[in-house]
Amino acid sequence: MGLKGVFLLLICLFLLCIAFAIPTTFSPRVHYPLDSLKQVTSLKPKIHFETRFYPQLLDHFTFTPKSSKIFYQKYLINEEYWRNGAPIFVYTGNEGDIEWFTANTGFLPDIAPKFHALLVFIEHRFYGESMPFGNDSYNSAETLGYLTSQQALADYAVLIRSLKQNLSSEASPVVAFGGSYGGMLAAWFRLKYPHITIGALASSAPILHFDNIVPWSSFYDAVSQDFKDASLNCFKVIKESWTELEQEFSEEGLAELSKTFRTCKNLHSVSSVRDWLWSAFVYTSMVNYPTEANFMRPLPAYPVQEMCKIIDAFAPETSKLDKVFAAASLYYNYSHGEKCFNVENGPDLHGLSGWDWQACTEMVMPMTCSNQSMFPPSEFDYEEFATDCKKKYGVSPRPHWITTEFGGERIEEVLKRFGSNLIFSNGMQDPWSRGGVLRNISTSIIAIVTEKGAHHVDFRSATKDDPDWLVEQRKQEVEIIHQWINEYYADMKQDKKFM
Amino acid sequence: MGLKGVFLLLICLFLLCIAFAIPTTFSPRVHYPLDSLKQVTSLKPKIHFETRFYPQLLDHFTFTPKSSKIFYQKYLINEEYWRNGAPIFVYTGNEGDIEWFTANTGFLPDIAPKFHALLVFIEHRFYGESMPFGNDSYNSAETLGYLTSQQALADYAVLIRSLKQNLSSEASPVVAFGGSYGGMLAAWFRLKYPHITIGALASSAPILHFDNIVPWSSFYDAVSQDFKDASLNCFKVIKESWTELEQEFSEEGLAELSKTFRTCKNLHSVSSVRDWLWSAFVYTSMVNYPTEANFMRPLPAYPVQEMCKIIDAFAPETSKLDKVFAAASLYYNYSHGEKCFNVENGPDLHGLSGWDWQACTEMVMPMTCSNQSMFPPSEFDYEEFATDCKKKYGVSPRPHWITTEFGGERIEEVLKRFGSNLIFSNGMQDPWSRGGVLRNISTSIIAIVTEKGAHHVDFRSATKDDPDWLVEQRKQEVEIIHQWINEYYADMKQDKKFM
Repeated sequence: MGLKGVFLLLICLFLLCIAFAIPTTFSPRVHYPLDSLKQVTSLKPKIHFETRFYPQLLDHFTFTPKSSKIFYQKYLINEEYWRNGAPIFVYTGNEGDIEWFTANTGFLPDIAPKFHALLVFIEHRFYGESMPFGNDSYNSAETLGYLTSQQALADYAVLIRSLKQNLSSEASPVVAFGGSYGGMLAAWFRLKYPHITIGALASSAPILHFDNIVPWSSFYDAVSQDFKDASLNCFKVIKESWTELEQEFSEEGLAELSKTFRTCKNLHSVSSVRDWLWSAFVYTSMVNYPTEANFMRPLPAYPVQEMCKIIDAFAPETSKLDKVFAAASLYYNYSHGEKCFNVENGPDLHGLSGWDWQACTEMVMPMTCSNQSMFPPSEFDYEEFATDCKKKYGVSPRPHWITTEFGGERIEEVLKRFGSNLIFSNGMQDPWSRGGVLRNISTSIIAIVTEKGAHHVDFRSATKDDPDWLVEQRKQEVEIIHQWINEYYADMKQDKKFM
Repeated sequence: MGLKGVFLLLICLFLLCIAFAIPTTFSPRVHYPLDSLKQVTSLKPKIHFETRFYPQLLDHFTFTPKSSKIFYQKYLINEEYWRNGAPIFVYTGNEGDIEWFTANTGFLPDIAPKFHALLVFIEHRFYGESMPFGNDSYNSAETLGYLTSQQALADYAVLIRSLKQNLSSEASPVVAFGGSYGGMLAAWFRLKYPHITIGALASSAPILHFDNIVPWSSFYDAVSQDFKDASLNCFKVIKESWTELEQEFSEEGLAELSKTFRTCKNLHSVSSVRDWLWSAFVYTSMVNYPTEANFMRPLPAYPVQEMCKIIDAFAPETSKLDKVFAAASLYYNYSHGEKCFNVENGPDLHGLSGWDWQACTEMVMPMTCSNQSMFPPSEFDYEEFATDCKKKYGVSPRPHWITTEFGGERIEEVLKRFGSNLIFSNGMQDPWSRGGVLRNISTSIIAIVTEKGAHHVDFRSATKDDPDWLVEQRKQEVEIIHQWINEYYADMKQDKKFM
């Protein structure tokens, strides 16, 4: 081989490095938003909610002249089952339009009549219509700086207190509910504001996904486990498809790839295809529900199993890219409406700058891909991550802040001696479950774990097709909440006696 | 009576109204700082503390570009009794130089050897040398806005975590201690950061002195009760002295008053004398310690009783102003060093703008004087108070924020089902005790109440003259803290076994 040969080899190595350099830092950059996919579904809540706006304080924790600026925080309210003095069920809104969370939390309208409960879904600041600076809210760190979880919790506390006063129902017990990041907020709300809420049901809340509490590879290991459990062949095909994909970086390869993936426009890089596939697998694993559902997208029951059936149905010699494309199509095109795919638009992450901001500031959840996963191995380079955030927003992440403010390390030791009335529910199909509380901590801090459950499946409306374990899970949750409420009323009665 | 007579009567009525108008709004304006009198004593701590500074974040709860500004927070540390892994005792500093609180909390050096404890006294932001904006810290709400209790608690959490890491002693249990406002912080710290501190001893912490939780007149009623208990005549003399005082508003009267009160300069109004007396009675009641002490000023044992002895020793016909002056002199001049009194300099409240700011923003503790008290009756006019604050600082108080953030209403109901490892100690001589937790809430949220105790008397160094009840109180506190620590180590051992 002459000099020219060496040079070509070097070029090839360089390009290969680039190709693989992206995946090695890809996953930490994506920061899978827990629930905030651009909401492609237009599901309506089962009951009617009235929309209201509360004049909320911009900054609860300082008294600078700017901090007392008022913005209008949206909340949805339903009083049809309510009796004065009866419980108030509050959903602590997460990273998106509150309508979407309302529509996807049929559990609350389902159980409200039994409790004569008032239902309130509060939108998280900086999402939906709850924009502290209107259209300028996302302009820069000067405005976005007020988008933090502690401010959101204080919003909830202030709003609930005012609402109870306006309803002349100060004695009503409040129970907090939240799923995903909303579940983290519900749990933290109970821990920080026990005088405002008597208990919380935190569904699929990965409150331990910070610092070094759970292994950084746990999320992708869990996604991989779902696919492996469905079919070892399926897992292997996906795992090996990435190498096949990276080989298509040439102009010809990309043209071929554009055909295979039925892209609406010609592809310019393999990375967009990788992201597109990656998202399909991750989100399908999250929503691996036991019934047909339309959470992020319409999908059949147990969609991971369905994806694997698609992969396994191919002849072994078929190209792995054909197989994974067919599998991903289940996620992107279950309703068969798509003629082509906008692969280079990214994995539906537009409009998500709120979560991206949160991930770049306090919600630092390091993620890596281990050799055991079905994804290309990747590390988490904190320095690079912090530099990127600084470049993007002008502020630096505070990677240890969440565990300083809310705890998490040695959670069992801490909470077995402190706190009460918390349910952490997790479905093990959901990769976020690995950052959740999976064991009972005390007699009143309870973990409900379902092997076949996925991302806050308990919060979905009951359907006739629900498996027994899901019916049982919801029943158990309702029973525990009943206990909290009964205990609260008994305490109140007792106290009145002594007054 | 002719027209001239009516006119004179009206003038008199008008002047009387003015004279009494001031007291009716006087008390709410003073906002007695809990512990932050200009520290006239120069007591040294019994053991040597090293002074350190921690690079602290300006704003923990937002991510604006300004929020990540660093300031240097002072803390004092003593390692002489410490063994790695042993407990860390943290004093959550209040509104003043940390040296002063360290010097006045001999209880911690007293008990540290038994526990092999590390001692850390952390200065509260915006006090002492912990000035986020240096000499400009008190310029305006732009800078002072960051002086809030929640920021202070977050400071403590961040500093303690970093300290433990630097000491490689992450497993050391941390116990929080605080007196007065520092006690409020210690209690809230346990409630908000149970993952950072295993328990807290909050001495004389009036966490219920907000909103309508305790009657607004309770503080001055308690001061009055101290004097009434010492001597009914004493109480009556003081109660009646105010009317006598108000009659001296004329030029001649003021000249006479200047003589009676041995003022260094001629008086211009009676209100300064009233403030001067008022402070003497209030502070003496707070520090009605069972032994000679030098907390705010040098005073004999049971100074309220001593004051009343002075009043009672006068012939009944002596002017009440002579009597109350003599009584107040005990407070201002126990060491007999003063030749004259700077009465118009106000009640030693200079240099206290930090607490004044806090009282004008979140620490809104309404106070009134009832007819039963020994002070002139007064109401709390919130509108006037808020207008004054707005005028002074450009920001409005948030009178319901403390109870929203930290609770307090129905505290027994809330905390009997939530939380643990808290001691609330209160001495009933101390008027702040009426805003404290005075009954056990659960088996591990304990109230220690001493009839003869005064403002965080348990935190003072043990002396040979301490009465039995005080020796017993401290012993009980040490025993409970021992239990917390033993339980913590037992939990740790147990957890290791299961790992």
